[in-house]
Amino acid sequence: MLVVLKPGVSGEEIGNVRRQLAAMEVETHFIQGATQSVFALVGDTGKLNLAPVEANVSVAKIVRVQQPYQLASRAFHPEDTVVQIGHCKVGGGHKVVIAGPCSVESEEQMLHTASLVKDCGANMLRGGAYKPRSSPYSFQGMGEAGLKLLAKARESTGLPVVTEAMCIETFDLVEAYADLIQIGARNMQNFPLLKRAGKSTKPVLLKRGLSATLEELLMSAEYIIAGGNQNVILCERGIRSFDTYTRNTLDISLVPAVKAISHLPIIVDPSHASGKWSLVEPLAKAAIAAGSDGLIIEVHHNPAEALCDGAQSLKPEKFRKLMCSLKKLLAAV
Amino acid sequence: MLVVLKPGVSGEEIGNVRRQLAAMEVETHFIQGATQSVFALVGDTGKLNLAPVEANVSVAKIVRVQQPYQLASRAFHPEDTVVQIGHCKVGGGHKVVIAGPCSVESEEQMLHTASLVKDCGANMLRGGAYKPRSSPYSFQGMGEAGLKLLAKARESTGLPVVTEAMCIETFDLVEAYADLIQIGARNMQNFPLLKRAGKSTKPVLLKRGLSATLEELLMSAEYIIAGGNQNVILCERGIRSFDTYTRNTLDISLVPAVKAISHLPIIVDPSHASGKWSLVEPLAKAAIAAGSDGLIIEVHHNPAEALCDGAQSLKPEKFRKLMCSLKKLLAAV
Amino acid sequence: MLVVLKPGVSGEEIGNVRRQLAAMEVETHFIQGATQSVFALVGDTGKLNLAPVEANVSVAKIVRVQQPYQLASRAFHPEDTVVQIGHCKVGGGHKVVIAGPCSVESEEQMLHTASLVKDCGANMLRGGAYKPRSSPYSFQGMGEAGLKLLAKARESTGLPVVTEAMCIETFDLVEAYADLIQIGARNMQNFPLLKRAGKSTKPVLLKRGLSATLEELLMSAEYIIAGGNQNVILCERGIRSFDTYTRNTLDISLVPAVKAISHLPIIVDPSHASGKWSLVEPLAKAAIAAGSDGLIIEVHHNPAEALCDGAQSLKPEKFRKLMCSLKKLLAAV
Amino acid sequence: MLVVLKPGVSGEEIGNVRRQLAAMEVETHFIQGATQSVFALVGDTGKLNLAPVEANVSVAKIVRVQQPYQLASRAFHPEDTVVQIGHCKVGGGHKVVIAGPCSVESEEQMLHTASLVKDCGANMLRGGAYKPRSSPYSFQGMGEAGLKLLAKARESTGLPVVTEAMCIETFDLVEAYADLIQIGARNMQNFPLLKRAGKSTKPVLLKRGLSATLEELLMSAEYIIAGGNQNVILCERGIRSFDTYTRNTLDISLVPAVKAISHLPIIVDPSHASGKWSLVEPLAKAAIAAGSDGLIIEVHHNPAEALCDGAQSLKPEKFRKLMCSLKKLLAAV
Repeated sequence: MLVVLKPGVSGEEIGNVRRQLAAMEVETHFIQGATQSVFALVGDTGKLNLAPVEANVSVAKIVRVQQPYQLASRAFHPEDTVVQIGHCKVGGGHKVVIAGPCSVESEEQMLHTASLVKDCGANMLRGGAYKPRSSPYSFQGMGEAGLKLLAKARESTGLPVVTEAMCIETFDLVEAYADLIQIGARNMQNFPLLKRAGKSTKPVLLKRGLSATLEELLMSAEYIIAGGNQNVILCERGIRSFDTYTRNTLDISLVPAVKAISHLPIIVDPSHASGKWSLVEPLAKAAIAAGSDGLIIEVHHNPAEALCDGAQSLKPEKFRKLMCSLKKLLAAV
Repeated sequence: MLVVLKPGVSGEEIGNVRRQLAAMEVETHFIQGATQSVFALVGDTGKLNLAPVEANVSVAKIVRVQQPYQLASRAFHPEDTVVQIGHCKVGGGHKVVIAGPCSVESEEQMLHTASLVKDCGANMLRGGAYKPRSSPYSFQGMGEAGLKLLAKARESTGLPVVTEAMCIETFDLVEAYADLIQIGARNMQNFPLLKRAGKSTKPVLLKRGLSATLEELLMSAEYIIAGGNQNVILCERGIRSFDTYTRNTLDISLVPAVKAISHLPIIVDPSHASGKWSLVEPLAKAAIAAGSDGLIIEVHHNPAEALCDGAQSLKPEKFRKLMCSLKKLLAAV
Repeated sequence: MLVVLKPGVSGEEIGNVRRQLAAMEVETHFIQGATQSVFALVGDTGKLNLAPVEANVSVAKIVRVQQPYQLASRAFHPEDTVVQIGHCKVGGGHKVVIAGPCSVESEEQMLHTASLVKDCGANMLRGGAYKPRSSPYSFQGMGEAGLKLLAKARESTGLPVVTEAMCIETFDLVEAYADLIQIGARNMQNFPLLKRAGKSTKPVLLKRGLSATLEELLMSAEYIIAGGNQNVILCERGIRSFDTYTRNTLDISLVPAVKAISHLPIIVDPSHASGKWSLVEPLAKAAIAAGSDGLIIEVHHNPAEALCDGAQSLKPEKFRKLMCSLKKLLAAV
Repeated sequence: MLVVLKPGVSGEEIGNVRRQLAAMEVETHFIQGATQSVFALVGDTGKLNLAPVEANVSVAKIVRVQQPYQLASRAFHPEDTVVQIGHCKVGGGHKVVIAGPCSVESEEQMLHTASLVKDCGANMLRGGAYKPRSSPYSFQGMGEAGLKLLAKARESTGLPVVTEAMCIETFDLVEAYADLIQIGARNMQNFPLLKRAGKSTKPVLLKRGLSATLEELLMSAEYIIAGGNQNVILCERGIRSFDTYTRNTLDISLVPAVKAISHLPIIVDPSHASGKWSLVEPLAKAAIAAGSDGLIIEVHHNPAEALCDGAQSLKPEKFRKLMCSLKKLLAAV
């Protein structure tokens, strides 16, 4: 860790910083610069309380050299993590395509869509039973009845299911039904929820928050792993930018960036990233080409009757076409 | 609501959209444009399920004319809401200054700081007992012990206290101790938490999310009001932008924008917005000049020993100076 | 065009807006809504002066139905534009790979790199002779001497060259030497420069500004086409977002979005988008998979001696490997 | 400057970096960390070519301790710069209010508005003769005829005038007529234009780019000062963010941030920052309260007939009211 001092601080002020640092049990080196000086701290600085140093008026800034995450870091775990969900594997070269409707809406819709996506080659089934909606007047999901329909769809297709847990109160219920538990983008920094997920025996799909940095995403994964659950899959689903022609902005660079510094698998959600079904295919291909461990895609047997996110759901025939393209692409990359 | 069709759609496609709209119970007008046509929907369109229309391939975009919030809207409630917290009023011309440490750390710290901020003229006390921290290795707050110290500080000073509720599980506890319950920025779209807050008898301080739009902020307030709790105070605390010289970017325009379209009070948090104590005074003044109903400011009797956010906490003497400046400013505006 | 009125405007106020609109020579329809009313304007509204209407206090907002660009729009020009540069074609299924150093630095560097990239299969050569640098103390490019070296490299390899024109003053010179004239990201809204480019007989590579919207990019292309030059290639090179792990954020969705609404070719610059050579390959593949008409990539025979952007330049062996991967990928997509 | 190495680099790799640094003429210190090591470079590192070091595969990142600007830095010029424009002073406690229409449209409009704003207490007059417009079909300004009207308005009121120079070609003309030359937001990184402004004898108003960082703004000022022109006034006019309820997002924190690290005056443009006349007054007050050296405000005698930006222009009576409020505010701060 590097503590950069302001230009023109006096010897006495430098002494004050030195005393502050001495109280922390790390080795300290002082480098006198031409206009500004620096203290370098050597040792395990990841868990130091830096607030007092940051508050010191002589300090210009603190530069962390070490990453603040460890369990999620490739430096501490060089091999790719492979997450097993039923018969599916994700990571370490294993790719997954998760498909299904935004929300579970009815038995007919869920079973119909499930058999369609299986038939097209999807490996897992998605469907929301608890839905985070920005309006209190929008459909909030079927709740446990939806979870039961997901279980039925799993029985009839053999596909493992992923569904979102929105709070601790309903976590047990979701955990009982799901094969993979989703933490949604709006909950990426819901720390009590992350701690609960850390105690789960089920793997977790952690979606990146709308304005979360790469480091914050990995820190949220760190919460789950530190809690005891190592089966974390990350998901890029678009960030918020100034442009509005897509619902969100797919940050495709996150895929190779995560691969470089973390051992966790990462998949991409082109449906939420774009908000438009017509962009799902090109973005899905881009994700696979960039090295994504998989995709999570909204498919609805009749988007024009969907209770949510119809605009970004693929019709079955489009999904089938996409799966064909992906097969060719996977062979090439 | 306006449904804009794509250029070049056929008469048959227009007919399909017309049939879709006819199924919704609203009055529909068709306007044939030079290159693109539009359906105008008249009536209470706020609660329609638009997903099917958005999914229609002939539809270019949907333009909402009505705001999606009602209870939070000034159009439906023209007078300013005044929230009463103990003897304090916020809104409708009543200004509040909330001050105190980021976290409750010890009895000595809390009581000392409380008496200092009261002495300087603050109207309410802040202090976190449950702390949302991006790292699992950072201090997570004192929990109930912290709430008890807040209660003690209230007794000794007479100041009402505000503290954060991070999840439903600990909400009852926070509700029992707090006079004003804070929903933090990272939880602005934690909808189960918002629903719980809607059932509370205590007023709520709702902080804007890091990348929440004005509309999303008001929709989150709508969740609370729709649940039955009309005592909501909004708080601008900085948004995430591309620039890094401040921790966040204070979006000062939100203050007059909220005043124009909502009846709810809005206050500003210059400490989190800047992340630097040296910017707190100018930003606090700017907030008041822009019409803010108050401020929430971090003050620590010894920032160099703070367990969190020391860099953005004011020392007592700086806070006293700020309160003097604010008095003059309030007289002028 | 739709003119949405504020809620609660009086009949007199509606009359004022009506009179304002009547002065414009377009057909007007009035739709009375439940809480808000709307005027729909029919006809060629693209060139109307809307400032007076926007200034009217009774107007809530104006919604443009028609796109403000015409010449750049696919609606007005359904077939893909194919830009011919020497023997290269770009667009309409023709892909291009442009490679070379960030700056022209010396004869040895330029000729060496040119022969290397040709040998690896690149179709065109890049190299900056005039360099936009954020610091006045950084290397500003070789100027005309650099242009001459580019010409030499073209002679020796047969590859057409692309280089940046930074201002009108040096435009003639750049035009004399270049086969494709680049307008850089920082000049995307340098309107006098766009007008000059519109009068050029050479094709133009228009890079997207760091915070330019899709519409603004197409409006800048419209400037060039309206000036008489239809040979415009767009380039996505990363936008500015809140995250800092890459230099910019590659907005991969722009590629299919441009394809849908414009006939112009679009290529991707993974070097500037990421700022890191290690991300160039995955992003280049993602671009091609998403439908990009090509790539522009920085290659330096010795990045460790580059005068600018060494961190994002590929070494020749990495570029060769990338070109092999791309060939397989192109066969698959 | 600090060169941070990647975790796990070998002794040989460290040696390679060491050799690279030795070639630069600066003093180098090596600090061996627990997981990562750092080279600290001491001396004048501001003008080093860092590209080769950044390109080194063993280097994780480079941390600049010194600011890249010098002439614009308060560290090198501790006293506030005071810019004199006619009888007006800006900076060092001197405040300025610049007002007038977005564009010069006619003699009647210009002279009328000029006398109105003078009468209300404005110190300088604004008006665009060359207009940067995102559409080639929008009004592009009156050109030299507009400059002549500005000169006439100056004669009749005695107020100095500010107007924008859009390119080198018309710079001489603008320079001949203007008292203060504006470089617009879209040209903040038009480096040839900045160099030309550096040779001007007239002071320059440099507007911040839509997505320019604080450091980039100061680097652009550095270009002008390095060219020989020390009379630079900075202007915050709103940045581009994800939210759309205002045209841009006023970054009020820039004002105190500039004051802390630079000696240059900074003013605020609440008209462009908000795009709405109704927000101009609260934002103007916020700017003054935050320590701005002045304001630049759009005023039009009849916004409903403005050729551009009518929505954000104040009517004369609103401007008069604002000037009264500002007087009280200035007395208080």
